[in-house]
Amino acid sequence: MIDWGLPESTVAALVRGAGRAGESVAERDEAVARALWSVVVEPGDGDAGVLVGAVGAIEAARTLLEHPAPISLATATDGELTGSAAERALGRWLPRRRQADVVRAFESAARTRARLLVPSDPEWPAALDDLGAHAPLALWCRGDVTLLSRPSVALVGARAATGYGEHVAMELAAGAVSNGSAVVSGGAYGIDGMAHRAALASGGDTIAVLAGGVDRFYPAGHEALLTRIAQQGVVVSEAPGGTAPTRWRFLQRNRCIAALAGATIVVEAGRRSGALNTARHALDLGRPVGIVPGPVTSASSAGCHAMLRDYPVVCVTSVAEQMELLRGGVSTIGDCDGDGRRVSGANDDVVGPRDPDGMVTRVLDALRPRRAQSVEEIARSVGESPARIRGVLGALSLEDRVVSKADGWVRRGPGA
Amino acid sequence: MIDWGLPESTVAALVRGAGRAGESVAERDEAVARALWSVVVEPGDGDAGVLVGAVGAIEAARTLLEHPAPISLATATDGELTGSAAERALGRWLPRRRQADVVRAFESAARTRARLLVPSDPEWPAALDDLGAHAPLALWCRGDVTLLSRPSVALVGARAATGYGEHVAMELAAGAVSNGSAVVSGGAYGIDGMAHRAALASGGDTIAVLAGGVDRFYPAGHEALLTRIAQQGVVVSEAPGGTAPTRWRFLQRNRCIAALAGATIVVEAGRRSGALNTARHALDLGRPVGIVPGPVTSASSAGCHAMLRDYPVVCVTSVAEQMELLRGGVSTIGDCDGDGRRVSGANDDVVGPRDPDGMVTRVLDALRPRRAQSVEEIARSVGESPARIRGVLGALSLEDRVVSKADGWVRRGPGA
Repeated sequence: MIDWGLPESTVAALVRGAGRAGESVAERDEAVARALWSVVVEPGDGDAGVLVGAVGAIEAARTLLEHPAPISLATATDGELTGSAAERALGRWLPRRRQADVVRAFESAARTRARLLVPSDPEWPAALDDLGAHAPLALWCRGDVTLLSRPSVALVGARAATGYGEHVAMELAAGAVSNGSAVVSGGAYGIDGMAHRAALASGGDTIAVLAGGVDRFYPAGHEALLTRIAQQGVVVSEAPGGTAPTRWRFLQRNRCIAALAGATIVVEAGRRSGALNTARHALDLGRPVGIVPGPVTSASSAGCHAMLRDYPVVCVTSVAEQMELLRGGVSTIGDCDGDGRRVSGANDDVVGPRDPDGMVTRVLDALRPRRAQSVEEIARSVGESPARIRGVLGALSLEDRVVSKADGWVRRGPGA
Repeated sequence: MIDWGLPESTVAALVRGAGRAGESVAERDEAVARALWSVVVEPGDGDAGVLVGAVGAIEAARTLLEHPAPISLATATDGELTGSAAERALGRWLPRRRQADVVRAFESAARTRARLLVPSDPEWPAALDDLGAHAPLALWCRGDVTLLSRPSVALVGARAATGYGEHVAMELAAGAVSNGSAVVSGGAYGIDGMAHRAALASGGDTIAVLAGGVDRFYPAGHEALLTRIAQQGVVVSEAPGGTAPTRWRFLQRNRCIAALAGATIVVEAGRRSGALNTARHALDLGRPVGIVPGPVTSASSAGCHAMLRDYPVVCVTSVAEQMELLRGGVSTIGDCDGDGRRVSGANDDVVGPRDPDGMVTRVLDALRPRRAQSVEEIARSVGESPARIRGVLGALSLEDRVVSKADGWVRRGPGA
């Protein structure tokens, strides 16, 4: 049991307000400690992850609360801090160690009916653990938290999407839903919004991961969309209510999108699109990444093409290819042979069925639909012996593709 | 010296007529023997390549001419021939062993001012030797044969090209020319034609490789274009004049395009486009292959995307990337690490300059252009110690991106 500096009944009420009813004191302490950490650290703070992982959230919180602040640290001329890693971490956290902010986070959750989800909850998505020390320490969620553990695909892309990109996002999202997959995205304008909308329109599940708190939806123009997602899907953030989205938090939010989904697909992205950051998080996690190509004349696809050139990603052009990627049917890892070549291809037949020495092609080339030709004539024209030509003609006549007449052989026309 | 069954003066005249003046008897015999082989075999006949490679074109021709035809071969029920490989090869060649056809090939060359090029000629493109036993045994050429040894890029693609594909083909061809490279293609409608045209319009060199003889240009609608290429560039075929283009010959012609060029780029290709066959020949030869992506909604790019998924090819979106591919700057071989991942990327900065822990981003996020904030305030909002914030602010103020005022720090706006 830990002293939060609040009456126990207040603590119990706060925790209950964040969707956590009937908890033991230990469970309550865990929830409050996690909430404290989500208030104190910026997303992805590996030092906090290591500390909490080592001693647990409650003991880690005790260390933080009992530390005599401020600690003194000097800066070198290049702006780097001197001092041990632990001193530097405490230097970051102590300025935010304010009880009022933790209380406010719980009050915001109660007001917006957000639930505080912690790793010991059965609904906690195990996929996030792949982030290791950089995993979120808690999630604030509005909606159906069971969706977080569903098989899902992340569809991400440019805010400045084109009609082409939005069309493809819509198709892929609808296709994901009809194949039993949820759609994860970032709730932004453009590709993200279209992916969420198409998932909802198909009666599917969708997960929006926000960079700021779930109390106030960003962007403002997606207030209605995100409200619908909170009702029919789930909106989550690792930041407590009241947290503004910042560029840094957008970049860190992307790692959660990548970790939650079984595969990440970038539908359209300019050269500096944040969607590429999501894709790289997915690659770091060993998750498959799909890239939708577009016209090389479109700046909105330039980032996609750069990824296709420089990263072990897969070109995705259809719902079938999306699902193949998600099922791990296409892996970019381990299918290179010694020379770095991809060893097999699903499209080995792109130029037609097997006809190793081309004899079928060549005999059919030589035949005419009307003028009959002798075997010798065909042999000369094909450049093959009469004996071989006779064999090929025999095989083709069994398939009804050639006909033997009184004066020689003719090709059967299509539909003849 | 070999007896061609013709007066020696006739042989000399025939050879002279094919652009080969002042030759010795041995050189003449070599030319006639090569012409005979180009008449007798279908393109890419490896048995002929092996035989000619082993004993020389003249001795191989003697074997062929002196063989008592016909040889008897039986066919098994599946259409396969019984008999040794040599018997089967002779079975293919003997039906075409006709003096009149060799004479006609030379006469056609004289009429169209085509030159017979053989491997011992200094103008013979050494790149073709990479085809091994499948290298052409001779080339019939109209135009400047010295171009065949120039650095070149093959631009190939669908006959049913879209405006998008033709635009990209034009850009790439013009860019190749302005970077000192010749453009190789197949003279077909669509991408091929656009690549040749743009090369000519840019005052560059272009090479058309035909599937049929160079006496009659195919397709008929490209008569004028191919005539211009014969005047300003070069039109070549391994088939003698009078040979009709067949599907088989188109597929084999593609191997010559791939071998002549330093790199092959597929601009637009449907799922069954012959351009994919050219790309696969290039891969077989170890030549780099570039693929231009397009909208996934365009059937004319479906083959390109299939290649991107399944083969070790490079996504090419600009002239710069084309030239990088041609110079071997991008290799798809040998740059996989143990896990099959591409090990380095030219676009590592796609999401912005290095800012490893994001501190610059985070401090700039926290600052306002007008409302000044204390270091402690910024530290709390960023989630970092005041000491570290002070260091970062110092570095940023040196870059003139933040300003220290009496009441705290503000961000400099763009253009402020």
